[in-house]
Amino acid sequence: MRKENRLIQWIWWIVAVTVLFFLGFIIGWFAKPKHPHNVNDNASSKYLREFLDEMQPDQIREHLRTFTRLPHLAGTEQNLKYAEQIKGEWQGFGLDSVEMVPYDVLLSYPNKSQPNYISIVDQHGNEVFNTSLSEPVPEGYEDVANIVPPYSAFSAQGQPEGDLVYVNYGRTEDFFQLQREMGINVTGRIVIVRYGKIFRGNKVKNAMLAGAKGIIMFSDPADYWASRVQPYPDGWNLPGGGVQRGNVLNLNGAGDPLTPGYPAKEYTHRFNLEDGVGLPKIPVHPIGFHDAVHLLRNMGGQIPPNNWKGAVNISYRIGPGFIEDFKSQKVRMNIHTNNQVTRIYNVIGRIRGALEPDRYVILGGHRDAWVFGGIDPMSGAAVVHEIVRSAGRLLNKGWRPRRTIVFASWDAEEFGLLGSTEWAEDNAKLLQERAVAYINADSAIEGMYTLRVDCTPSLNTLVYDLTKQIASPEDGEEGVSLYESWHKRDNWTNDRDAPRISKLGSGSDFEAYFIRLGIAAGRARYTKNKKTERYSSYPVYHSVYETFEIVERFYDPSFRRLRAVAQVRGGLVLLLADSQLLPLSADQYADSLGKYAQRIAQLAQRHPKEMEMFKVSFEALFSAVENFTVASRDFHERLQTLNRADPLQLRMVNDQLMYLERAFIDPLGLPGRPFYRHVIFAPSSHNKYAGESFPGIFDSLFDIENSADPQKAWEEVKRQISIAAFTVHAAAMTLIPPA
Amino acid sequence: MRKENRLIQWIWWIVAVTVLFFLGFIIGWFAKPKHPHNVNDNASSKYLREFLDEMQPDQIREHLRTFTRLPHLAGTEQNLKYAEQIKGEWQGFGLDSVEMVPYDVLLSYPNKSQPNYISIVDQHGNEVFNTSLSEPVPEGYEDVANIVPPYSAFSAQGQPEGDLVYVNYGRTEDFFQLQREMGINVTGRIVIVRYGKIFRGNKVKNAMLAGAKGIIMFSDPADYWASRVQPYPDGWNLPGGGVQRGNVLNLNGAGDPLTPGYPAKEYTHRFNLEDGVGLPKIPVHPIGFHDAVHLLRNMGGQIPPNNWKGAVNISYRIGPGFIEDFKSQKVRMNIHTNNQVTRIYNVIGRIRGALEPDRYVILGGHRDAWVFGGIDPMSGAAVVHEIVRSAGRLLNKGWRPRRTIVFASWDAEEFGLLGSTEWAEDNAKLLQERAVAYINADSAIEGMYTLRVDCTPSLNTLVYDLTKQIASPEDGEEGVSLYESWHKRDNWTNDRDAPRISKLGSGSDFEAYFIRLGIAAGRARYTKNKKTERYSSYPVYHSVYETFEIVERFYDPSFRRLRAVAQVRGGLVLLLADSQLLPLSADQYADSLGKYAQRIAQLAQRHPKEMEMFKVSFEALFSAVENFTVASRDFHERLQTLNRADPLQLRMVNDQLMYLERAFIDPLGLPGRPFYRHVIFAPSSHNKYAGESFPGIFDSLFDIENSADPQKAWEEVKRQISIAAFTVHAAAMTLIPPA
Repeated sequence: MRKENRLIQWIWWIVAVTVLFFLGFIIGWFAKPKHPHNVNDNASSKYLREFLDEMQPDQIREHLRTFTRLPHLAGTEQNLKYAEQIKGEWQGFGLDSVEMVPYDVLLSYPNKSQPNYISIVDQHGNEVFNTSLSEPVPEGYEDVANIVPPYSAFSAQGQPEGDLVYVNYGRTEDFFQLQREMGINVTGRIVIVRYGKIFRGNKVKNAMLAGAKGIIMFSDPADYWASRVQPYPDGWNLPGGGVQRGNVLNLNGAGDPLTPGYPAKEYTHRFNLEDGVGLPKIPVHPIGFHDAVHLLRNMGGQIPPNNWKGAVNISYRIGPGFIEDFKSQKVRMNIHTNNQVTRIYNVIGRIRGALEPDRYVILGGHRDAWVFGGIDPMSGAAVVHEIVRSAGRLLNKGWRPRRTIVFASWDAEEFGLLGSTEWAEDNAKLLQERAVAYINADSAIEGMYTLRVDCTPSLNTLVYDLTKQIASPEDGEEGVSLYESWHKRDNWTNDRDAPRISKLGSGSDFEAYFIRLGIAAGRARYTKNKKTERYSSYPVYHSVYETFEIVERFYDPSFRRLRAVAQVRGGLVLLLADSQLLPLSADQYADSLGKYAQRIAQLAQRHPKEMEMFKVSFEALFSAVENFTVASRDFHERLQTLNRADPLQLRMVNDQLMYLERAFIDPLGLPGRPFYRHVIFAPSSHNKYAGESFPGIFDSLFDIENSADPQKAWEEVKRQISIAAFTVHAAAMTLIPPA
Repeated sequence: MRKENRLIQWIWWIVAVTVLFFLGFIIGWFAKPKHPHNVNDNASSKYLREFLDEMQPDQIREHLRTFTRLPHLAGTEQNLKYAEQIKGEWQGFGLDSVEMVPYDVLLSYPNKSQPNYISIVDQHGNEVFNTSLSEPVPEGYEDVANIVPPYSAFSAQGQPEGDLVYVNYGRTEDFFQLQREMGINVTGRIVIVRYGKIFRGNKVKNAMLAGAKGIIMFSDPADYWASRVQPYPDGWNLPGGGVQRGNVLNLNGAGDPLTPGYPAKEYTHRFNLEDGVGLPKIPVHPIGFHDAVHLLRNMGGQIPPNNWKGAVNISYRIGPGFIEDFKSQKVRMNIHTNNQVTRIYNVIGRIRGALEPDRYVILGGHRDAWVFGGIDPMSGAAVVHEIVRSAGRLLNKGWRPRRTIVFASWDAEEFGLLGSTEWAEDNAKLLQERAVAYINADSAIEGMYTLRVDCTPSLNTLVYDLTKQIASPEDGEEGVSLYESWHKRDNWTNDRDAPRISKLGSGSDFEAYFIRLGIAAGRARYTKNKKTERYSSYPVYHSVYETFEIVERFYDPSFRRLRAVAQVRGGLVLLLADSQLLPLSADQYADSLGKYAQRIAQLAQRHPKEMEMFKVSFEALFSAVENFTVASRDFHERLQTLNRADPLQLRMVNDQLMYLERAFIDPLGLPGRPFYRHVIFAPSSHNKYAGESFPGIFDSLFDIENSADPQKAWEEVKRQISIAAFTVHAAAMTLIPPA
């Protein structure tokens, strides 16, 4: 019995041991996470709060103060010094790497010994009036050297002389009206146009196409003057002596005019100047309204329609030339600006991704300024600086984002987005495969009213989610979210009850990333009330009066608005870099495509007879959009049941989300614009600043009106519809389960 | 004491239980693989053996027999029937999905009621000789309908009449020699050239550029006749009545001439014929040497140099026109061939990848044939069929590859690679992001000597490794590997002691995948002894004599050669789809780039004076190649210590390997050839069949000789060098650790 007992005890023992062992084994097996990456789940939101809270108005003020003391035009010593300072501080903040990346691009400067100006000359050739050679320097900056006088960068050299013709804003439609309705030919004449409404390069192109031998652009108070606001320094309006600088290229995304398509490195082949992309062939010069008065007040010819009249205190006339008493007087432009291949420097900083170092989220904005850059771009650069500082703080606390973050301080944006475009060209192969998103950081403020966001539709949801977690910077809105504050001020009423988000146009550094490479992109800034404030951009835009003080005194005394912008830009970057599942929405894209397709079809319907005659149909496009809509809905439904613990499955859907924007790229480019390759979004051919949807179809429809061969023109419309339909179908295919 | 004992026992118990539990837990923890994907490690080699052994000569014989019974020209009923049969059988073999993918492309057929032929006409316009309207039908096929008579697809229609001029092979250099040395102008004349050396479309283009109003191509026995071999059916030489069909387009990779850049779907916009890509503007017609004798024998004019003389039993003369007695005779072409938009069908089968369904390995070859396609393409299609069958067997045994495999039976290859190119256009966005490699499967045999492989350098190592695991198919080589057999017969002596691997040119369906999209690609077939067998391709190429019997009787009676080709093509696909780490070598690419750079620099050095005068240097290119070499060496070194258990790290390096080929793509394309975008490899501008390295530099150097403006021509050389250097630098960047 005792023996039996022992046996039983032994059996019991063995069973117990075995059971316990297996119990342990099984618990051990299941206790172990399928994949260690899971620990990163939902961590992003925790860090988001910390990150947003780290950003400080006073810090932004300091950054802005630091980087606006001296003029830092692209290609100058001072702009290199700021680059080095930024590099050093970013390193100090704790980035994993920071490097200077130089390129040698074509820039353009006034000739120091032969200033540019415009004269009125009498019949003997004597200059009876000359425009000013510089702007009155704002107080406190009297001793500052190297303030570049107002000029049009890349103007042709020359001293054309002739009669003036006034062409309103110099838009395509203004020249049409001038030629067709007023019967005035500008060939061999000098046109004078007011700044505003469209990109100045388009004005210059229009003037060239019309045959003008020179073009003068002036800031009319009607366009650069807010009501009940004093001119700087007593307010933020443009003084009469203030002038808007700016480049007058028509690059269409080419970057450096001499090296289109390739980075401007030491070994890179350069075209001759005459083969350069987008360089105007006529002299161009900008003036303020004090000078404009002198040129305009004696003009003769027809009285223009009211919408051509600005707010200079003269009676506007079309010309050509001056009235009776001044008939023998001509206008002469004296332009000696030089094009010059010059070294520029981007600063590129990186935080290496912990799990997916080969996925890039880019935050880029330019550093070069026409003068001090108080608003453009340093209000944006200060914000980037604060974002980098805050990210560094998180890094020090042990955080590291899932994906790599790239911070860029671009150079020579003012000369045609050159720094950002050359870097995009240099890194195109990497970016195509690896870039998740590009967030742009130009001027962070252009008004005092509310937030403004332009982005690809797939970012809409993220922008809304994020702004709900950011506080309104407005006085009296404690406890109100930025989302609510923005929603209240700018509701997207036609389409949906949410704050308005607009299409991306161009005119800033996202261009090469979004429109050439097809990387999801967005930008955010504080803006004016578009409904009541009719002036273009902001009054002192590109003048010497863009100082630190104008921001501190008028635009954002508490620096809370800039902080809010920093939180939006930085928050987007953090969530894109650190979320396990990419916060991009194909659904929102489907929605937008539907609206764009409706709109473009309506536009075509203005020609019902031709639509029938040439058998033009939008059916293929509507059907493609429908297809995309179904595919995106199914895609997001599948996400609900995605096994996020499987790193390959996660990577696969993230790749689908990342590459969605890429699917809208046509390697053949838009007609005549090889570097604008996005089939859904591109700047209008008639105004670089404006984003157009289905630009290929839009442009071909625009051309209908001026075509000598309507059949051919409508064939091109049909071809563009077919390309758009194909592209949307192809994009839909990227959303279905692979294989 | 008893109580104490019990207590001790209890403690002992608890300790034991705890220890055991933890032991179990710990063992459980560590017993669990970090990632279940590890089980796939090294599995591929086991399955490789099974896969290779599954392939059977008799099966291949059966497949070939089945699919060569009836003519199956692209666009015909019979070719659709074969497509449906293939679809059904692939489904039966066990593929996950098989679909028919149609496109509507421009094809070209003879007019059934107005046959094409060439006449000699006397001074009264009477036809005193007409070329034959068809080839003598081989025995056993006498009752077969729908044998298309010999013609040049896409020939212009017309009945030009004029004097003949003989221009040898119709190469660029032949026309130069004719015009410069012999002083003969072909304007308004009809040229007659022999087939061979270059792609026939290039001959037609050269004739057009020279001003000819028609072109006749004939098969000279010197080029289509092997020594000591009887004409078919007693041997495999081309009978005198045999004629080479073929298209005469100059597409440069555009695919369907009416829809360049976009898939030819129902909704796709089509250009008018006059705007179609690559369509010849003059009549073209092919003849055999029995007919050629009649046209050539009375020709007058100069006696050509010896290397212009073929093996027709006449005295070759240049012309123009006939000798004395026949001076009044002219030659008239009667060409009524029609271009016609026609539906074609690709068959696409898939095996879904187990772990990375979003990575594609493609095996594609065409199905359409000029007549029976005994060699071209069905020897290749039979091999594909056997590969699919064998893969199906593995699937049934529970195997599933890591990545997705796509099998394609292309249509309308003979009409300009149309089926494969349209599908590439249709799926470009997916393929760009997801395609690992493309293996081509055109004719599997063109000779009886040894293996021939053309591939991207990154596949070299894999090809060598694989062929060491395949048996030689040659009699008397039992126990000898295919590698050894091949090495012995075709040693790559100039560069290395290994079997020769050549550059990819064009002329088959890999073109869009490799040269437009930048997907690593390769092809393999059995070939002749190039050193001793001087004829072009193989004698009966594109004639009615390409039958099942010619393969069975002469080329591969045992079908072991075709089996070996199946094992090479199939083995490549399996290893690319199933290896954990992609078997691609950046090192080999570096090696090849070095050789190509040397070679192109030497070519330029033929102009030492100009090189100095225009400051042409290859330094930037050499330095880029050096950079690439270091990067690839470091990359492969890092692979040694790669943690293959980490799925994200593995995916990251695999992505680097996959995208390496993509990095050589320039979206702007080669000059004048927007669909040839590979900076390292493209067909020569002067012969589509030949692969050229650094084609942009090569072409610009070629143009030097004929340029009216040497400075401009050398500037273009410099530009091309700079593009090549940039591209190689950029490719090197893709190999360094991301971020």
